[in-house]
Amino acid sequence: MTDLVTFGETMLRLTPPAGDRLETTDTYDVQPGGAESNVACGASLLGVDSVWLSKLPKSPLGQRVVRELRGHGVRTGVAWADPDDHRLGTYYLEHGGTPRGTNVIYDRADSAVTTVTPDELPVAAIKGAERFYTSGITPALSPTTLATTRTLLEAAREADTRTAFDLNYRSKLWDPDTAAETYRDLFPLIDTLVAPVRDARNVLDREGTPIEIAHSLATDHGFDTVVLTRGDSGATALHADEIYEQPAFETETFDAIGTGDAFVAGFLARRIRGDDVDTALEYAAAAASLKRTVGGDVAVIRPEEVEAVVAESGDEISR
Amino acid sequence: MTDLVTFGETMLRLTPPAGDRLETTDTYDVQPGGAESNVACGASLLGVDSVWLSKLPKSPLGQRVVRELRGHGVRTGVAWADPDDHRLGTYYLEHGGTPRGTNVIYDRADSAVTTVTPDELPVAAIKGAERFYTSGITPALSPTTLATTRTLLEAAREADTRTAFDLNYRSKLWDPDTAAETYRDLFPLIDTLVAPVRDARNVLDREGTPIEIAHSLATDHGFDTVVLTRGDSGATALHADEIYEQPAFETETFDAIGTGDAFVAGFLARRIRGDDVDTALEYAAAAASLKRTVGGDVAVIRPEEVEAVVAESGDEISR
Amino acid sequence: MTDLVTFGETMLRLTPPAGDRLETTDTYDVQPGGAESNVACGASLLGVDSVWLSKLPKSPLGQRVVRELRGHGVRTGVAWADPDDHRLGTYYLEHGGTPRGTNVIYDRADSAVTTVTPDELPVAAIKGAERFYTSGITPALSPTTLATTRTLLEAAREADTRTAFDLNYRSKLWDPDTAAETYRDLFPLIDTLVAPVRDARNVLDREGTPIEIAHSLATDHGFDTVVLTRGDSGATALHADEIYEQPAFETETFDAIGTGDAFVAGFLARRIRGDDVDTALEYAAAAASLKRTVGGDVAVIRPEEVEAVVAESGDEISR
Amino acid sequence: MTDLVTFGETMLRLTPPAGDRLETTDTYDVQPGGAESNVACGASLLGVDSVWLSKLPKSPLGQRVVRELRGHGVRTGVAWADPDDHRLGTYYLEHGGTPRGTNVIYDRADSAVTTVTPDELPVAAIKGAERFYTSGITPALSPTTLATTRTLLEAAREADTRTAFDLNYRSKLWDPDTAAETYRDLFPLIDTLVAPVRDARNVLDREGTPIEIAHSLATDHGFDTVVLTRGDSGATALHADEIYEQPAFETETFDAIGTGDAFVAGFLARRIRGDDVDTALEYAAAAASLKRTVGGDVAVIRPEEVEAVVAESGDEISR
Amino acid sequence: MTDLVTFGETMLRLTPPAGDRLETTDTYDVQPGGAESNVACGASLLGVDSVWLSKLPKSPLGQRVVRELRGHGVRTGVAWADPDDHRLGTYYLEHGGTPRGTNVIYDRADSAVTTVTPDELPVAAIKGAERFYTSGITPALSPTTLATTRTLLEAAREADTRTAFDLNYRSKLWDPDTAAETYRDLFPLIDTLVAPVRDARNVLDREGTPIEIAHSLATDHGFDTVVLTRGDSGATALHADEIYEQPAFETETFDAIGTGDAFVAGFLARRIRGDDVDTALEYAAAAASLKRTVGGDVAVIRPEEVEAVVAESGDEISR
Amino acid sequence: MTDLVTFGETMLRLTPPAGDRLETTDTYDVQPGGAESNVACGASLLGVDSVWLSKLPKSPLGQRVVRELRGHGVRTGVAWADPDDHRLGTYYLEHGGTPRGTNVIYDRADSAVTTVTPDELPVAAIKGAERFYTSGITPALSPTTLATTRTLLEAAREADTRTAFDLNYRSKLWDPDTAAETYRDLFPLIDTLVAPVRDARNVLDREGTPIEIAHSLATDHGFDTVVLTRGDSGATALHADEIYEQPAFETETFDAIGTGDAFVAGFLARRIRGDDVDTALEYAAAAASLKRTVGGDVAVIRPEEVEAVVAESGDEISR
Repeated sequence: MTDLVTFGETMLRLTPPAGDRLETTDTYDVQPGGAESNVACGASLLGVDSVWLSKLPKSPLGQRVVRELRGHGVRTGVAWADPDDHRLGTYYLEHGGTPRGTNVIYDRADSAVTTVTPDELPVAAIKGAERFYTSGITPALSPTTLATTRTLLEAAREADTRTAFDLNYRSKLWDPDTAAETYRDLFPLIDTLVAPVRDARNVLDREGTPIEIAHSLATDHGFDTVVLTRGDSGATALHADEIYEQPAFETETFDAIGTGDAFVAGFLARRIRGDDVDTALEYAAAAASLKRTVGGDVAVIRPEEVEAVVAESGDEISR
Repeated sequence: MTDLVTFGETMLRLTPPAGDRLETTDTYDVQPGGAESNVACGASLLGVDSVWLSKLPKSPLGQRVVRELRGHGVRTGVAWADPDDHRLGTYYLEHGGTPRGTNVIYDRADSAVTTVTPDELPVAAIKGAERFYTSGITPALSPTTLATTRTLLEAAREADTRTAFDLNYRSKLWDPDTAAETYRDLFPLIDTLVAPVRDARNVLDREGTPIEIAHSLATDHGFDTVVLTRGDSGATALHADEIYEQPAFETETFDAIGTGDAFVAGFLARRIRGDDVDTALEYAAAAASLKRTVGGDVAVIRPEEVEAVVAESGDEISR
Repeated sequence: MTDLVTFGETMLRLTPPAGDRLETTDTYDVQPGGAESNVACGASLLGVDSVWLSKLPKSPLGQRVVRELRGHGVRTGVAWADPDDHRLGTYYLEHGGTPRGTNVIYDRADSAVTTVTPDELPVAAIKGAERFYTSGITPALSPTTLATTRTLLEAAREADTRTAFDLNYRSKLWDPDTAAETYRDLFPLIDTLVAPVRDARNVLDREGTPIEIAHSLATDHGFDTVVLTRGDSGATALHADEIYEQPAFETETFDAIGTGDAFVAGFLARRIRGDDVDTALEYAAAAASLKRTVGGDVAVIRPEEVEAVVAESGDEISR
Repeated sequence: MTDLVTFGETMLRLTPPAGDRLETTDTYDVQPGGAESNVACGASLLGVDSVWLSKLPKSPLGQRVVRELRGHGVRTGVAWADPDDHRLGTYYLEHGGTPRGTNVIYDRADSAVTTVTPDELPVAAIKGAERFYTSGITPALSPTTLATTRTLLEAAREADTRTAFDLNYRSKLWDPDTAAETYRDLFPLIDTLVAPVRDARNVLDREGTPIEIAHSLATDHGFDTVVLTRGDSGATALHADEIYEQPAFETETFDAIGTGDAFVAGFLARRIRGDDVDTALEYAAAAASLKRTVGGDVAVIRPEEVEAVVAESGDEISR
Repeated sequence: MTDLVTFGETMLRLTPPAGDRLETTDTYDVQPGGAESNVACGASLLGVDSVWLSKLPKSPLGQRVVRELRGHGVRTGVAWADPDDHRLGTYYLEHGGTPRGTNVIYDRADSAVTTVTPDELPVAAIKGAERFYTSGITPALSPTTLATTRTLLEAAREADTRTAFDLNYRSKLWDPDTAAETYRDLFPLIDTLVAPVRDARNVLDREGTPIEIAHSLATDHGFDTVVLTRGDSGATALHADEIYEQPAFETETFDAIGTGDAFVAGFLARRIRGDDVDTALEYAAAAASLKRTVGGDVAVIRPEEVEAVVAESGDEISR
Repeated sequence: MTDLVTFGETMLRLTPPAGDRLETTDTYDVQPGGAESNVACGASLLGVDSVWLSKLPKSPLGQRVVRELRGHGVRTGVAWADPDDHRLGTYYLEHGGTPRGTNVIYDRADSAVTTVTPDELPVAAIKGAERFYTSGITPALSPTTLATTRTLLEAAREADTRTAFDLNYRSKLWDPDTAAETYRDLFPLIDTLVAPVRDARNVLDREGTPIEIAHSLATDHGFDTVVLTRGDSGATALHADEIYEQPAFETETFDAIGTGDAFVAGFLARRIRGDDVDTALEYAAAAASLKRTVGGDVAVIRPEEVEAVVAESGDEISR
């Protein structure tokens, strides 16, 4: 049985070598990446039977995406589009150490997924799944993806498939007000909300401590679970009126992209297994810390590694 | 004084390593490429003072293009566009040996250049130049680029700047009939036409031998010079009622992309210098053969190398 | 429904860069490779629903193999072994142009697969499949793999799953006499035999023309189909008393390893689709010629590419 | 109008990959580098119209240098030398983390620039410029470069082009006493002196705090501005009897080479724009901190990035 | 005259690029590595005339090992084995930052060296040497290597060649009890014992402070010298009833593998030169800190670099 | 006992990747190369005990050279020079396919070896050797190397060490007349002369067929053996009044540099072993053909590979 279905856009990520810049580089590392496929892949590697739904051009570039996901053990439910009319989104990523920030240039307008409609997708997969996950990026892509997101969430609701949603606010896609309005529209369909505290404040206009924000979000929108992440400072969760605090694990960052997705993958992997929020939160934080040591969008991390971090013994040469 | 002005689109070209495929690769070599900048760069390296006109997003990606062209000695007249609304076109190139063909996937729709208007460009540069060059790709990009192409050709005409045009028919951009109609519309503004015999036949509907086709094109459209290329079989030129035949030079191909542009660069370099069609044609063929030994779109070739090939002595270790 | 099940060993293939040697190199390209997974992958990319059966150490190295196969669309039926006791075989491959031969050093002794027994494998997959394929390498690995090969072939026979067998004689694994004895023992379980003419002569002691050899093998062992390959000179097939001759397609070789497996993949892909031997043979030869342009063991080739070669038009730049 | 002219040697910098050593490596990254072209390039990228003067062999190696500088937007005034008699200097750079120091091996003796005379250079460019910059490396190269340095500084003085000079003491080129004597000889022609405090102490024999040293240098040599750098501890400037203190910005070092040149580029960029010393100093320190995150000699840094660091907000993922 | 003879296994070490994982990588860096050859190479580069004894398959892979050692100046006394029956051991190394540990997968079973007997080796080399070194890895490989280790140690003893032994306990090779029994059996033949405190506690069952452990080991087994290492915390030595304490030097780690071997190489290099334990210990710690900045198993470090660290001045750019 | 001593310069060879050019490249492959060390290395790998004499800067660059040679099994007799005053020569190599020629740029002036005197070298090594080899490059480097070459040849003569000399005329080092005069001066000290027919004609002013030239050279200068090479057309030898003709073997060229040195290495390896000229010539031609398939200056070729080519069976996949 399928444990987890995710829905969203996956792009080709183009990255110059370390120390090189987009305006000078002669080479890109290329790897597919996208919030929802990152979660599907990360969860799959942690033992979750995962399916990813999306739309891709029927070309070597679309195949490149599917290959990567299959390699991570994810099954794909892809609507294949005519490559003459539908492109694959890309994004350019330049890693920069302090004080130069990591920079992302999106080239995702008019990608195939912006035209995806529910009838092109194997919606049945959602109905048979334990959980359905998508993020705030998908409804930002086009009116069509917004409508499809809503339809899929409704399908999940109807089928008693629990839903999780990561706010994933992207200022390069829309402004806070438009985003907030859309979010609020979708929230009634969401069981578990994951959001950075920062976005809860800036986009959802919440004030107060993380605990206060979690309570106010849960109260206003009826979430079963709220998880607020605070980067290096850890995460706060609210579930069944209980508050859980989880510090972040120490980590040496090789590639920060995908940390939040690894967190979600870890959290869902444990919740799907039936673990409680407390355990899932610790596991999520450990998965996120491990992700940062691995290149690429995807958390190529195995359960025993997460468990070793939780058990605080992952740090030596094993030989 | 400027010798040559070219106008057209330059994209980022993304190429997997030799033997690797687009659907499996983890790396791209990246280099800007586009017919008209290839000609500007090739000509510049052969001693021609060259300017390239276009429109680019004001981003590291746009800068990447300008850097490359400047490196080849080309001055750039760029209309800088807001990168939030204007993208840079890309193209994916997969080299394949026999029997697997070289494959190109364009991702150039809606690139910044498709919105370029004459008032954004330093048209005065054309008026002060000896020659103006563009190709059949540019008018195919958008109605706007078609209109701008026409305006620039007219500006050249008015200023007695001689014009050259390479048919460069791309079946992935438009169909033969639409292309032919556009071509015919622009031909009265063209002095020198360069075209593959194949396209003269399939797109311009010409029949007969290359010589017959050259005569019929010149007669119908009043070209000063017609150059018909035949790949490995060389080229045929018609100028002032004289026919010139030029065989291709032997070459070991490392990268075939840009061969035609190298040919044009070599031809124009010599014509601008005042050499006659005969000499320019031989020089063009030699430049084209050298290009194929060099990776990337641009013919990184110096005059003494072309001359050595013409003198048939370029083939040994010089030490 | 499963179209094709294959069974055999897959190793990590370690290759120095072009022009470098095993005794000097500082880098290996690494990619999984093995005759039976090569066939499964090649067939999968050509549209065949494929499953690969084998045994691997439960380690990142074993996962590396599974990832690759999944990427090519193959489902895997793997017996996972304790990595402390079971290794993954490797092979070192040094490409060499004329007159230096390509050299292979096997390091495959005592690999996990040498201990595989039928009860560890999902044998039911074979029973539900259209075809089962294995090669002469597998029974050479250990008495256990010989026994398992026999059991799986018998299972196929019982289930009316048609069987194919590539002789794949490897002088580094066993001597001709031992090999021949084993082959003869397995032949009654085989429907389609593929063999290089050279091995038919040297190992199976056949004499005469390829046609004579095909007839004599079919007569002696009751094969439904015999395909004899002759490298550059093409292939000869015998089926239902009909002889089919297929020349090889011209090709520029980037990586010769896996050519035979691509041939088999192409042949089976078409036979599974219901095409006749004639068509399948031409398709096989085209797939083999394309494989040689691609790096790695696996024929990363799509049906439209094979068809283009068959239609003799695959050789130009498509743009 | 030209803002900045610089004069000095540019070499090919040869660097093994990270973690590799000069005595074992099989690869070099190669990039042109030299204090004065680093300043010209860095300033150009920060919006300054820059020209670099030097002498190079007329060979692909000399062209390699010119290409790089042009790519950064610098115009070049090069005296081209016969490559049979004039070499291009190189330097080998080995990065080493603590406690292994970064190591530089110069191979710059007898390079083309050591023979450069004023009449070979477009000295007029200096006369029309806002600022002229050279460093203490140039006069150390040969008696000829010393004489030419003096002549160019005098030309600047005459034309009211303001002059800047970075001490850049290199113990591998000369001893402190010879250096100091030369410096003192040139100081009357200098408006802005930049020097590490360490060299002010060890080479110029100054004692006391940075403030005391700045005052004593200004008093003795009549500098308009003195900037003393102290590595991680920031910089101290004296101008118009005012002292300015600037701490260094936090930075993760990828490549420390060129930090001082980035500092000068940033400082001059703002001074040329008309900003006061205070602002220029902060900008210089920010540019220097950014440089350390980028590979190569040149500070490939854009104004908005420097401004972001100054505004202390450059540290997050922008997406 | 030979200063140092070492005996042990050298494998090919296969390492993915930084940030990549064994289960996803397409490339390995390959370099020979093994405790005893690491010590021989490190010592050789520090000026010691060194010989390494072992057994290798007579193949390009065996040659790869010998080449590397010769490059470091080590002479090799190799028993060449038939490559059809004897393999070269390999090990897969995945570097991981905190919290992901560095991971090693051995594939060394049945390597050629496991069959090495004294009569295959130039034992005379030991007799003429100043010191003989081997480690606790060698006797763990096979009963044959255990017997050979014993014989070589006895040969050294007889010839008054001083012996050094690094415990090098590897939990992937044997369990603590078996190891301890073997160690105790060999200890009477050892003059200098080097061991991590951790292993002294866990494997040799010692309790107390490092000083107490050193005393108890020396007393029980009659070692001339005991050196206990404590990673970041330095080392403690006991010699002639004197205790020496040495802190570790600060270091930025590029590659931690081989740190202990660099320590031993540094220690032996100075002891062989006649320096006392105090000096040798400081030199050893400095060599170990330098090793961590260099990629690969071997400490490619020169005496002047070690001396610079000891003199605490190794940390700046030298130019 | 030493079989072969060679004397000459070894440089660092800097090569851009295939398809890249010196004026654009960002990377060099680096490997030591020089005619006399190429011969020593090639011969060593073919089983000859070889020593190379030269002078190098005592720096990581000098060590880089020694490491490479030691890796190939060559012992080195190096006069170590102060790196502050003595540089290591380099050469830039750009491979180019037809019609672009391979290009070499020397940067070897004033290298350490140009100052080498006999008293710095272990001349005794020559006296104890079977053969001494140097080439026409060495005397061209400086008057000092010319004098030292003469002295070493005389030392060989006195000791009955047979001498071999490859003309190796380099037009970038001297003109034909100066070269010829020097050659004629050294010829009386030479037993075996190897020369390209082309140079025999152009530099030594010989006319006629290769056979006539061989006779005239032997007659005029008293050579024991004359070997004239003709590239693709093979070689002609004269020894004891006997003429031997050897065609070239077919080869796919990866790197043509060092072909002549591989030829000499193969020839001397067999002559030293006592084989006659006929056998040595065939072996030489086979070694040369193999060299061209290997990257770098050195023929990394083993005797069994040469023998396989001679036996015309080296061309298949061995597995």
